[in-house]
Amino acid sequence: MVEKTARENFANPSALYDEGRAAKELLGGSRRKIAESLGARASEIIFTSGGTESDNMAVLGVFQAVKNSGLSNPHIVTTQIEHPAVLEACHEIERRGGSVTYLPVSREGLVAAADVAGALKENTVLVSVMFANNEIGTIQPIGEIGKVVKNFRAEKMGRMERGTKLQVGAISAGGHVSTKGNVGTGTLSFPFFHSDACQAVLYKKIDVAKLGIDLLTLDGIKMYGPRGVGILYRRVGVPMLPLFFGGGQQGGLRSGTENLPAIVGLAKAFELADKMHESESARLSKIRDYAIAQILQNFPQTKINGSPIERLPNNINICFPNIEGEFLVVALDVEGIAVSHSSTCRTLKEDSSSYVISALGREDCSASSLRITLGRGTVKKDIDALVKALNRVINLV
Amino acid sequence: MVEKTARENFANPSALYDEGRAAKELLGGSRRKIAESLGARASEIIFTSGGTESDNMAVLGVFQAVKNSGLSNPHIVTTQIEHPAVLEACHEIERRGGSVTYLPVSREGLVAAADVAGALKENTVLVSVMFANNEIGTIQPIGEIGKVVKNFRAEKMGRMERGTKLQVGAISAGGHVSTKGNVGTGTLSFPFFHSDACQAVLYKKIDVAKLGIDLLTLDGIKMYGPRGVGILYRRVGVPMLPLFFGGGQQGGLRSGTENLPAIVGLAKAFELADKMHESESARLSKIRDYAIAQILQNFPQTKINGSPIERLPNNINICFPNIEGEFLVVALDVEGIAVSHSSTCRTLKEDSSSYVISALGREDCSASSLRITLGRGTVKKDIDALVKALNRVINLV
Repeated sequence: MVEKTARENFANPSALYDEGRAAKELLGGSRRKIAESLGARASEIIFTSGGTESDNMAVLGVFQAVKNSGLSNPHIVTTQIEHPAVLEACHEIERRGGSVTYLPVSREGLVAAADVAGALKENTVLVSVMFANNEIGTIQPIGEIGKVVKNFRAEKMGRMERGTKLQVGAISAGGHVSTKGNVGTGTLSFPFFHSDACQAVLYKKIDVAKLGIDLLTLDGIKMYGPRGVGILYRRVGVPMLPLFFGGGQQGGLRSGTENLPAIVGLAKAFELADKMHESESARLSKIRDYAIAQILQNFPQTKINGSPIERLPNNINICFPNIEGEFLVVALDVEGIAVSHSSTCRTLKEDSSSYVISALGREDCSASSLRITLGRGTVKKDIDALVKALNRVINLV
Repeated sequence: MVEKTARENFANPSALYDEGRAAKELLGGSRRKIAESLGARASEIIFTSGGTESDNMAVLGVFQAVKNSGLSNPHIVTTQIEHPAVLEACHEIERRGGSVTYLPVSREGLVAAADVAGALKENTVLVSVMFANNEIGTIQPIGEIGKVVKNFRAEKMGRMERGTKLQVGAISAGGHVSTKGNVGTGTLSFPFFHSDACQAVLYKKIDVAKLGIDLLTLDGIKMYGPRGVGILYRRVGVPMLPLFFGGGQQGGLRSGTENLPAIVGLAKAFELADKMHESESARLSKIRDYAIAQILQNFPQTKINGSPIERLPNNINICFPNIEGEFLVVALDVEGIAVSHSSTCRTLKEDSSSYVISALGREDCSASSLRITLGRGTVKKDIDALVKALNRVINLV
């Protein structure tokens, strides 16, 4: 399908000639299919180059639009265990004069909706909490957080309506944002709720309206789709400044010719994921729990990182006290088994320990943990092979 | 090749296991191949999502790095006929407190190197002039402009060394930039020279060192390579702030997992383009000149837009006075011939006239021109068919 599109639909979807119109229809169809699956409108789907770009658009784009509208010190609420794409964008916000609250998580790796509620301020423009963590697979209470944000917004609007005479303009009241020009038109009141659902979308049916999500990040590669393509769902009316400028594609929010073959592939990946949500979740949850039980039984010194219940069906993260995670990865590689320790992004830095596991209050496990990811090809006997290989490897220590 | 990579090299190039290392080698090999072709170092090649992102990185990235280092009003020199990705990034710079000189072009669509020299100021941080225009195919005097920028920089450095006692810090002197943190380390003196060579690279051998280019934009789709991938060549030492933040890939300048299959395909497209530069340029120049002669002869009222000599071998742009370009595109489409008027990006706006042709001093032609692009599949008899179709279409008017 992707190859067919890459070969046959070479035209620019904005071109006027026949091939251009055909490309435009394919683009529109893919957009509608994805929007429908998320409970969104087609115009709310922005195609990007991947999860990192989508996260940055959500975090920096909303921050900058509100800041440019006149609020000098926008505030963001996020967690200590977000993906680096969100955390580093938040650090950039601090360099740009904003402030950020990095909420802690429980020992199980969960954020409390009450903590989000407690962190909201009049100048909070965005709450960014990932749907499921990329290292430890914990699934956050997204629906509850969505409600917290919605309620805060409604209360603030109520206060604003009652006290309009005291307020000097919409922005200074922390309310409506009015933006125009090369910007996503903003007509809604902040704070907005962003969630990075790259890791969750394969196993969770996501309905943005039901969950109260205003901005959602997705990535092709994380859902058996193509590389180099991602999605930002942006609720109509959420103010946003683009990260880059040009031909004005996608409502001016994301200039550049759309990557049509990848987009068509992404829509197909969505369709397949929708069909497999339940069956794959059930199948993998069993294999995951079997693997966890086997590992805990074979290596009694090990501990699981993150909640065993509020957890992605494909994620296992286990602490092997006093053993270097990096050693385990390399030794298992020799055994023909590909696993990770901490996050791949982090291996680019000199410090290969996991800030996510540190945030659980398990500093001792941050460099001694193994992340095992299951997938569509994983079967129970792979786990038996893993446990055997782990036994050989641990005996080397 | 691309499909093979997409199927077999699914791993993250930053992962530690075997497949990750293989992916890393493929990535490094592609980077070296492209760097070699451009006369650059491998570490100077940044992979992006396409030309629009590369242009924005060059223009906004350098502007913001220098601004954050303490120069309050950086100045950019560009032309009136740049691609919207450069022009809109320049408009953003004006919104951010910088200033921009938009140089005019001659009636032939050429920028004078002397005009660039005349526009340079102490606070000029960047000169951005496209290698060849996307609408009218005119090839700019890039080597001359490169020399102008280099000489200005050398003179400024000389003045700085002679007058150091008068200068308060490097930046206030308009000289060295010292940047650090999540930023491309900048150790060189501005201004820098950026060129968007998306349209030129198929027909011109580009050696960045010889041409004095500090920043170069390229796009996969414009060189028979994959979509969704582009290049920014950035000379070591040119200060740059990233457009988005995250895992710190590509020296922190472009976070996000690299799109390996597309990158491998891009390196292959480079290799093929390198082999075909001369033969394809010679072959298409003949067809182009034949087409221009045929059209001017059949339709004596028409005029060619842009220099007939300093012109890409694959570009024809002709004014049909008093006929709507949009009508010609649609009518030729019925005849089975795909052409464009103005730029495709512009068709997204309500005004479909060409700002490039307006800049030639041919306001009357700006909505009455046809852009005909030749390619690897174009042969002489296609031109005969085009002229026949044009005769039928013009008779309809």
